Order: sequence, then structure tokens, then C-alpha cells
Amino acid sequence: MKRIRLIVSLLGIILFLSACGNLDSSSMSSGGGTSTSKGTQLTGQSDDSQYEGVIKNGKYVTSKSRGVSNTQNADNQLNLKSFETGLLNVSKNEFSTSKYAFREGQYLSKSTVSNWLDRESKSNPDGLNPKSNGSTSPTKRNPIYLQQIEEQDYMIQKDSKLTLGGITIGIGINSVDYYKKAQYGATYETDISNAQVKAQGRKIANEVLSRLRKKSALKNVPIVIALYKQASNDSLVGGNFFSYSVNKNESTSVSSWKSINQKSYVFPLSDSQSSPNTNDTTSFTNFKSQVEDFFPNLSGVTAQAQYTDKQLDGMNIKITTQFYSQTEIINFTQYLQSAAQKYLPSNVPIDITVSSTDGVQSFLSRTAKAKKFTSHVFNSY
Amino acid sequence: MKRIRLIVSLLGIILFLSACGNLDSSSMSSGGGTSTSKGTQLTGQSDDSQYEGVIKNGKYVTSKSRGVSNTQNADNQLNLKSFETGLLNVSKNEFSTSKYAFREGQYLSKSTVSNWLDRESKSNPDGLNPKSNGSTSPTKRNPIYLQQIEEQDYMIQKDSKLTLGGITIGIGINSVDYYKKAQYGATYETDISNAQVKAQGRKIANEVLSRLRKKSALKNVPIVIALYKQASNDSLVGGNFFSYSVNKNESTSVSSWKSINQKSYVFPLSDSQSSPNTNDTTSFTNFKSQVEDFFPNLSGVTAQAQYTDKQLDGMNIKITTQFYSQTEIINFTQYLQSAAQKYLPSNVPIDITVSSTDGVQSFLSRTAKAKKFTSHVFNSY
Repeated sequence: MKRIRLIVSLLGIILFLSACGNLDSSSMSSGGGTSTSKGTQLTGQSDDSQYEGVIKNGKYVTSKSRGVSNTQNADNQLNLKSFETGLLNVSKNEFSTSKYAFREGQYLSKSTVSNWLDRESKSNPDGLNPKSNGSTSPTKRNPIYLQQIEEQDYMIQKDSKLTLGGITIGIGINSVDYYKKAQYGATYETDISNAQVKAQGRKIANEVLSRLRKKSALKNVPIVIALYKQASNDSLVGGNFFSYSVNKNESTSVSSWKSINQKSYVFPLSDSQSSPNTNDTTSFTNFKSQVEDFFPNLSGVTAQAQYTDKQLDGMNIKITTQFYSQTEIINFTQYLQSAAQKYLPSNVPIDITVSSTDGVQSFLSRTAKAKKFTSHVFNSY
Repeated sequence: MKRIRLIVSLLGIILFLSACGNLDSSSMSSGGGTSTSKGTQLTGQSDDSQYEGVIKNGKYVTSKSRGVSNTQNADNQLNLKSFETGLLNVSKNEFSTSKYAFREGQYLSKSTVSNWLDRESKSNPDGLNPKSNGSTSPTKRNPIYLQQIEEQDYMIQKDSKLTLGGITIGIGINSVDYYKKAQYGATYETDISNAQVKAQGRKIANEVLSRLRKKSALKNVPIVIALYKQASNDSLVGGNFFSYSVNKNESTSVSSWKSINQKSYVFPLSDSQSSPNTNDTTSFTNFKSQVEDFFPNLSGVTAQAQYTDKQLDGMNIKITTQFYSQTEIINFTQYLQSAAQKYLPSNVPIDITVSSTDGVQSFLSRTAKAKKFTSHVFNSY
């Protein structure tokens, strides 16, 4: 939300900003707050591609279902990060970062989300996963399709108050369902085909939409629903969003889906994988071999790369090694700055983190628009 | 080393820079290298307060005593980082980053450093630590004073070749010597007074200087020697340099010492500590309480702060907590950007790292000259 817009819209109401407590640039005390941190405010914006977040009475407004998806994703944290960042990106198609502020979901409670994620049963009629059919065979049982649900609220400003402008719901569907036949027993897997992921996702989305419309606050706002295919637990990248729908006020079933053609890779590719773009893989390979040649006993240079419509969205490169001195880290980082500039694809965001067994030692980053990498070496007094 | 200076000095010699392998901006192939990465080059410079590092035949030139100090410092890695960064800073007083390049020490070998760090004995006449007097009493035994030695080489350019312009030697003296009476037994401590740290440091420095002058390559260059007091193993900050000497060509004993009045603190201070500067401690306390109020269950907000001549040099702040979503990390980081700007001391470099049990999640940084914090959230596809 642009500062100028905010200032204009705040004109005419009396604001008492005290010396500490309010973030001046983004304060939006509802109804003219009088003390340090009463009322609703925004976090401020680190850059204009990010949403500001909602603060209430000086505290961050956490999700009403906080922690539920986290537990569900304990086995592959990568799914959690890529799911949430991806959901923000889908939302940006509908809710621009200059007009809307972000609030963690306030309409789905912990117990609601827990019940929905569970199987349907006599005691849990709201379960969105199928009833158990009693089988424990990987191919005959009814798998758990729905792995996570997340609500994000998008707020607009009316008469110096924040009101709900729309919500986004992310639905994560398993590509592999991991299960046990006995408590503490071995883990078995049921594979779920892409066709099933898509069909189950759409079915669940329709049901979720109709349930949400029964809440009076959500009757009359646009509801974006995005479908995500979870990566398997052994994957070194998270899953990906494959379609989303924008559902206008009062609509109770999804009328059309837009597809998202997105896929993430880990470089170096395994022998069985085909390259999404040979230029990118060559760039990475050249970078990797230069860097490995430069520094003794590097233990790993890998990258996550994400593609949308076969175009590279960005790369996260991880370099791991043992360092024997801080000067090695400083000089290695300086070298990387030149080498990355020279070898890696341009015009896409690239992050490089350099770690040892003691954790992250330095990192480099270049945004899509920037010409040069910036670098930072973590220091200690 | 400024790029323009480099280009000028390289005029007149033929350079064959191939498409890959050389860092064009800083290539200094000695004698007109013909293949991708033959000869001597520099790493490039991330900013002009840093030295460029020396590369030979495409490889980073590592220290001849690589790994020796590291083992010595296993019990408090903070000593290692602060020792090496501090040694670079002392060196900058004598060897400017615009004229000199940095090379890891090439004159002291692993075995030399190991022998010097050991006790003097029949089998090791070169040991710089005192002979054992047989006692195991904390107050009667001869403690290990000398904990680490590091050599740094500073190179200048002559006739398109790098030649040695001077060296810096860092000498780390224990403030506490940890020892065992029996292998795998309990650890005992001998405290070493500040007066002893200083006296022993000076004595060892003189001996080191006279030994170095016996090497023909080191006869005729300035040798800077800096003395460091090691922090105890339970310290949450490293030790500090307390004096240094600049020894002109051929001088074999130190004629004068300059004192360095430097001390590092951990905020919040313990009850028994007095505040180095009440403004800074108040700033930190306000920042900490605002941040803790903002975000639920923060598990820690601490800072390292370093002072020279009672002036704040900079702060490293660590914030640790559990996050339940990527959106929490993004919004917390945006909030920190405003809060840090508002509460923390200005005109000094400040780093803030935000970590969870999964490692660093985001970080913010402001240089001494910059007006605003930059931030970066670590992402994953």
C-alpha cells in the first residue's frame, strides 16, 4: 500500500501518534487511536511486490488455524514454504499489493481445519477425506487426498478502516499418501495419479466454496481457490500449484479453472530427468564446476529452479563446505559474486547461500531487475 | 584495488582472456597467461572496504597452516571469527584496501605453527608456551598462554606481478587456560590476569618477530603484530585485540605498541555488568520489548555489540522463535525493518538474523552509511 495513498486517505481523521509504538509510515489506527499501539496498523512494506501485514493493538494477527498445516507438513517442510509463498503469488493475480493488505486467515478455526483435513466418519461428518474402506493395501485403500488447507485474507481500506476485500484458499493434495498399518509400524505409500490429484482437488474445492459461502462475512467477497500438488517426502523441492479459480461474490460452485503450468527442479538433474531448458542447466553446470575448482573440498553445490510455462522463475543455490577461516568465507563470497554474475542466467531472481556445519556463513542475491549480486558475510564480534 | 588502477597497470602486456575462467574485472595473469585460469588473479571486491583475495591458476590460495588455528578454537568458535575479522581490521590501518590485496599466510607452515603453539620441551625447542613445571594445581602450573597464531599476507602490484608488501601476525593469548589432569577427565581452569596476558603477548611477539626476520622473504617488509585476548569458552562474544605494533623493514624486536581499546558485550546485559553506553542499552531494550510484544512466543532477542574507545562499532542481533508459516516470517521481517529503523542506534552497522529451529529464516542489515535497513527472506521452491 503506497504511503501517499495512505496519507491521503487518513486526512480528516485525527491521529495521535506517540513517540514509540506506531509505525509512522503505515499507521492506520481505526477510529483515531489514542495510545501507543491501539487499533489496527500495518507492518510496512519491504518492497512493493510484498503485501503489508495487519497488526492489531501492536500485535501481529496470527492465523486462527495457526499450526495446523505445520504439523501436517512435518515430513517435508519444503511443501510448507513453497505452498505459502505460491499462494501469495496466486493471490497477487487478483489482489494487487498496492491496494490490498495481507491478514492471516481469521475465518477457519483450528478445529474446523482439523476436522476438514480428517476422514469423513460418523463422528466427523465434515471430513473432506474419504471414509476408510477398511483396506490397508496400497492400491485398494482410500488414500488421504487432502493434506493441507490455508486461508489468507486480503483487506482493503474503507473510511480509514480495514475491511475484507476477498480471501484466498489454498488446497494441498497429496501425490503420495504415506500411511502405517500399525502404530509405530513401517510406512507404506499409496501413489495418487495426476488425474486423481486434479479431480479430487476440484471436488474438494467445490465443497469448501459452498461451506465458506454459508459464513455471512464470506458471502459477498471474491474467493480465490488454488490447488497444489504436494511433493513426495524425499523431494528436495516442494510441490507446485497447478490451477486456480476466481469465484465472484455469492457463487457457491466453481465455474471455471485456470491452469498453472509450474514445475520445480533440483540441479544437478538426475540421469533420468530431462532438462527443462538446456541453457539453464549448462549455466548451472559451468558455475558449479568453476566454483568447485576454485575452492578446496566443496561438499555440495545444488540448486532449486522453478519454471512457469517453461520459463525460469528463479533459482536458489546452496553451497556447503567446511571453512577453516573467516577470511576464506569473505574471499569465497567475493569470488562467487563475480562467478555468479558471469555464469548464471540473467533477468531472474537468484539467491545463493553458503553454509558450513555451523550454519549459514554468507549469502548473495540478485533480483530479477538488478544487474549485480549483492552479498553479505555473517559476522560475529 | 580499484578497477581503473588495475587496467592502467595492465596496459602494455598482452592478455588472452578466454570466454570463461577469468574474472575480467580483476584479472592479473602474471606474465601474460594464455589459458583460462593460469597465473595469478584476484577475487574481485564486494565493496571497497574489503580486500581482494589472491587466486592462483583458478584456485583460491589457502593458508599454509590451514586448519591449525581452527582445531585450537574448537571450544569457542566465536574467538575464531572475531580474531580473523579483527585482524583484517587492524591490517587496514597499515595496508589500505585500495593498494593491497589479501593472501592467506604462505610463510608459516602447519608444522611450524603447531610447534610454536605447543609447550617448549626437549623434543620441541621452538614451543612458545612455557615448559611444564609438573604441577596440576590451577594456580601453580604454567598455563598455556599462546592459543592461536595467524599470518596474513598483503600483496602489492609491481610490473604486473603481485609481490609481498607486508604481513600481519595475529597472536591470541588465553584469558583462561582449560586443561585436564587425566585424559578424558574433568576440565580445570587456570585464570590468566590482564597484566599477564599483556606481558606474555609482548614477549611472544618479540620472539615471533625475530624468527620471522630469519626468513629471507620477510627480512625487508613491514610486519604488523596484533595481540588478542581470547574470550572464555562460555562467552557469547569473542575476545578482543588490545594492542598492535608496526615493525619496519629489518627490525627484529618490537620498539613500540599502540593500544586498542576494544570490548564486546552481549545484550541484554547481566545484572552484574555495567552498561557501556546507556543510550545503546535503552535502544536495544525498547526494540526487544516492542518486538516481543508484536510476535507471540519469541524465544530470544539478543545482541552482540562491540565498542572501540567507548564508541559503538556495530551490533549483531539474533532473534529466535518458532514460525508456523512463511507468511509469518515475511510479515515479521517487514515489521522488524520499521522497528529496527525506529529504535536501534544509527550510523553504525547493524545485522539482524531471524532464525527458527530450521535455521536462518530472514535477515536485515544496515551499513554505517545507509539510512535504511535492507531485508531478505530466505525462500524455497
